[in-house]
Amino acid sequence: MSNLVAEKDLYQEAERYIPRGYDAELYKIRHSAAHIMAQAVKERFEPDGPVHVAIGPPIEDGFYYDFELPRQPHQEDLAWVEQRMGEIIRGKHPFEVREVSADEARALFADEPYKLELIDGLAAGQVDEYGNPLPADVQPRITLYQQDGFVDLCRGPHVRHTGKLKASALKLMSIAGAYWRGDENNPQLTRIYGTAWRKQSELEAHLALLEEAKARDHRKLGKELGLYAIEPQLVGQGLILWMPNGAIVRDQLERFLKEEQLAAGYVPAYTPQIGKIDLFKTSGHYPYYKESQFPPLEDEDGNAYLLRPMNCPFHIMIYKQGMRSYRELPLRIAEFGTVYRWEKSGELNGMTRVRGFTVDDAHMFVRPDQLEQEFADVVALVLKILRAFGLEDFKARVGIRDPQSDKYVGDDAVWEAATQSILNALDGFDLEYAVEEGEAAFYGPKLDFVVRDVLKREWQLGTVQVDMNLPERFELEYIGEDNAPHRPIMIHRAPFGSLERFMGVLIEHFAGAFPLWLAPQQVAMVPIADRHVPYAEAVAQQLRAAGMRVAVDDSNNRMNAKIRDAQLRKVPYMLVVGDNEADEGTVAVRLRSGENLGAMAVADFAAMATQLIADRSLELALA
Amino acid sequence: MSNLVAEKDLYQEAERYIPRGYDAELYKIRHSAAHIMAQAVKERFEPDGPVHVAIGPPIEDGFYYDFELPRQPHQEDLAWVEQRMGEIIRGKHPFEVREVSADEARALFADEPYKLELIDGLAAGQVDEYGNPLPADVQPRITLYQQDGFVDLCRGPHVRHTGKLKASALKLMSIAGAYWRGDENNPQLTRIYGTAWRKQSELEAHLALLEEAKARDHRKLGKELGLYAIEPQLVGQGLILWMPNGAIVRDQLERFLKEEQLAAGYVPAYTPQIGKIDLFKTSGHYPYYKESQFPPLEDEDGNAYLLRPMNCPFHIMIYKQGMRSYRELPLRIAEFGTVYRWEKSGELNGMTRVRGFTVDDAHMFVRPDQLEQEFADVVALVLKILRAFGLEDFKARVGIRDPQSDKYVGDDAVWEAATQSILNALDGFDLEYAVEEGEAAFYGPKLDFVVRDVLKREWQLGTVQVDMNLPERFELEYIGEDNAPHRPIMIHRAPFGSLERFMGVLIEHFAGAFPLWLAPQQVAMVPIADRHVPYAEAVAQQLRAAGMRVAVDDSNNRMNAKIRDAQLRKVPYMLVVGDNEADEGTVAVRLRSGENLGAMAVADFAAMATQLIADRSLELALA
Repeated sequence: MSNLVAEKDLYQEAERYIPRGYDAELYKIRHSAAHIMAQAVKERFEPDGPVHVAIGPPIEDGFYYDFELPRQPHQEDLAWVEQRMGEIIRGKHPFEVREVSADEARALFADEPYKLELIDGLAAGQVDEYGNPLPADVQPRITLYQQDGFVDLCRGPHVRHTGKLKASALKLMSIAGAYWRGDENNPQLTRIYGTAWRKQSELEAHLALLEEAKARDHRKLGKELGLYAIEPQLVGQGLILWMPNGAIVRDQLERFLKEEQLAAGYVPAYTPQIGKIDLFKTSGHYPYYKESQFPPLEDEDGNAYLLRPMNCPFHIMIYKQGMRSYRELPLRIAEFGTVYRWEKSGELNGMTRVRGFTVDDAHMFVRPDQLEQEFADVVALVLKILRAFGLEDFKARVGIRDPQSDKYVGDDAVWEAATQSILNALDGFDLEYAVEEGEAAFYGPKLDFVVRDVLKREWQLGTVQVDMNLPERFELEYIGEDNAPHRPIMIHRAPFGSLERFMGVLIEHFAGAFPLWLAPQQVAMVPIADRHVPYAEAVAQQLRAAGMRVAVDDSNNRMNAKIRDAQLRKVPYMLVVGDNEADEGTVAVRLRSGENLGAMAVADFAAMATQLIADRSLELALA
Repeated sequence: MSNLVAEKDLYQEAERYIPRGYDAELYKIRHSAAHIMAQAVKERFEPDGPVHVAIGPPIEDGFYYDFELPRQPHQEDLAWVEQRMGEIIRGKHPFEVREVSADEARALFADEPYKLELIDGLAAGQVDEYGNPLPADVQPRITLYQQDGFVDLCRGPHVRHTGKLKASALKLMSIAGAYWRGDENNPQLTRIYGTAWRKQSELEAHLALLEEAKARDHRKLGKELGLYAIEPQLVGQGLILWMPNGAIVRDQLERFLKEEQLAAGYVPAYTPQIGKIDLFKTSGHYPYYKESQFPPLEDEDGNAYLLRPMNCPFHIMIYKQGMRSYRELPLRIAEFGTVYRWEKSGELNGMTRVRGFTVDDAHMFVRPDQLEQEFADVVALVLKILRAFGLEDFKARVGIRDPQSDKYVGDDAVWEAATQSILNALDGFDLEYAVEEGEAAFYGPKLDFVVRDVLKREWQLGTVQVDMNLPERFELEYIGEDNAPHRPIMIHRAPFGSLERFMGVLIEHFAGAFPLWLAPQQVAMVPIADRHVPYAEAVAQQLRAAGMRVAVDDSNNRMNAKIRDAQLRKVPYMLVVGDNEADEGTVAVRLRSGENLGAMAVADFAAMATQLIADRSLELALA
């Protein structure tokens, strides 16, 4: 009886391990699925030699388990394991929990070297059973969960019995290598990934989403559509070659931002990608962020330079040319500034995690009395820019001070005003936002935009940060109306974040089918037969003169093949021209979706398309 | 008698030392002036201690002489020397020449250590008497020239007597330090610069030109007009910060080129400013040009990277993505590509000699049968671009093979065709050009544009180069109509050369008064009194909506001070508005030249100005 009570307590206590925001039922289903998989894997491979189990946690959308196996696993093994998991599920075996002493646990896992290492950590109160460091105030219990004779060292939580899972809502996904504790000096283990849901329809929806995400993967589309390339051998990992099609999109993105910035009173600057290390010592970027920078290089005169990790110190140098008057502020300096950061090669990912990238950067130098208005203007600009891409689904995160901490620089009143001006600005925008205490930078409060794309995946894009530190470090001043020197406040902001990352997100968001104004090729002329090529060329010239990007498909392919090719390349318009069109001065307009707009006079088509381009519309036909 | 004949021979032989293109009379005048100055300097300083003479050649527009002096020279010393030179000139002392043996020379210059070093070099047949290496086939004589008791080791040529100079056409210009033989490990000498002409009016014209050049100096105007800055301490020497006004001009320059390139069928690219050293080993840029590069940096994985000295290898990487078909050529890849080169700090100069610069680069990948047409198109584009800035005064230099040499790579027939296509292209353009044998790069013939600005100074700007080497080194291919692989030819081209250098030239060419389309601020609104500010603002808004860069001077200054300020800042238009203008919806249009266009309706002014901007006109009023 007391044992049952204890078990209930342990069950309840384990619930606290469910991460915030993770559906509790799914978490327990997936955690239990990991144990069931481990049981089946042992049954499958033990005839070939010893199987050592390591760890098996739930992760986003699924779970994994790491094993040391006596042989390479094959696809048939996975099928067998999956089928065996179904049997275990149907057996409705209870998950039984009990607390044990470290010595009991050691005796039980005497043949499991990874478990023994975890038990040592648990016993010393240093790490949880996944090997992660524990907060100082948590004293872990050592608990075991057992189902159908399989016992695992585990903090839980689990479902009450295996029958709570559905075999039809479960799928093993892939096999990968993983170092024990993520350290490449340790043995490499075999990691098997799976996913599990409440019911089959949820699994199917998830798999469909994965398919869709795969089809939209910017690394795949980036190659297929000639948008970008990476040459690890000769250029370097994480360094992006913007191929012509991608560069056309980037040109349009830059031009769009430049226009908006010009209208908002920004001024441009161009500054070098290297600077003396003293600049970054003054700014504080060196040596504090040394591990995320390329190493310095030294010239023959003994000067050390850094590939810049940030643009701000250069814009500060521009501010510091001559004495500034209060009448000159706000001074808003904008630059598409390329920076270089050191990321471990394992963390690189296509265009979204790179070592060289161009920030759509701007720095505002403002008087304290201008901060609120300037912040509101910046937020308005960022929202306008993101919405232009149909990114309407935002979350905003405001990072403010932890009032208990003294790590922050700057005046209390300015902090208060800055924080209040962010909140005021956001309240003016009808935007969902979360205020996160303690998430401010040490130099000022900040605002991050998290954007959900069409697949509801979240991307951290634009950022707006108040900075009271750099003006201090560089002793920035302006002469006020009182003829005395004052210190300005800085705002850092980047609506896209970086052109590379934003481009990666856009590719996936649009599945490569860019809006008309961004499309690398906007029109594919499709002459039905060779004799229609001259007319197609004439129309192309007319459209080019109107500023459009047009190519004529004068290959020997048949019309349908030409259309299919243009569709694959996501060209917005295919203009089919044959005898009728040539006679009547028209084009037959097809969209990449397959939709047919019918015949239009060339001038009408040109007027429509140029209007849509000028409006940076997301549509291919006028409303 | 035989001595006189010998002297005549020596005189004539010395004429061959006059550089090609240098006026022979001026050369001799300046060379003689250097000797006369040396005589006077010795007279001036020997009372204070020994004076050692080094070398004193004619240079462009003048001459100098290097001395080891017993004390610092002052301005009064120069005045004394200049006056004494006048006396020597009026003395009409003959320049007498005689040949001597090395030992005779050594005896004569026993107290002159620099001359002794030169005599040793001359005796060994290695260097001329300026210490420069000699061609192997030249055996120098040791000759002495003497006037008025002053003897110098000198190859000549000189005027017949000092009276051939005019004191009124001579001026000492400045004093500088110079290391013996330009080597900083050697003693520092005192260099005195002077200039000398046939007559006073020539000197005056030259001095006026110098004044004008000084007023146009891009380093001076760059600072005054807020165009660029350099921060040697924190950013680095030779690294340009484009200030907002300069960045506006650059934006327009880039946009102009982008438009022209789009129309000419170029495609854009963006590539990183660093690449693995293996890339540059493959291209051959490393280690062969190592001394003109920043040193490599090495990441924590042991990969070495180079700040790129050239963009071409990156565009080649773009070409190499996938197999190319003959139908895709010419492929024209354009990028404003920032590169870094190592220049000694003594060689840096404002924007025209820097360590980091952005090339308006493009690389064409062409089939051999396309080379001639492509070359002609490139030349046409370069000429169109340069002429848009009023740079109408060109020289073109064609560098072709030295038929005797075997240093060249590539097929003979292709060399012939390439050379011929350059010459054909130039003949089609009514352009002065010089063909310089042996001046081709080892990888192909080339064409350089030398542009004379309004002060008739020559600037090497645009360059077009054929390259048969890189396609070979990178094993570039395309599949021909015959389905077999072929090697393309590359053309490198940059109409501006670099944005920094071109900007420096433009600043001087326009004396900072940029054409309307480039002007950082295009219109200064000048309200006569405070009550006219709202109307001025309304006009400004109207002009901004039409895309113009406008500022309202709402300071408390009087109208004339406002106009003067705008003129100093070289703002093309000042629009003065008072009661009349506000009542009638007009503006009183003044140009920065001071010219008055009278009152115009706002709409008429806007129409005129936007037309001139769209045309990229050099005028401020319609013809």
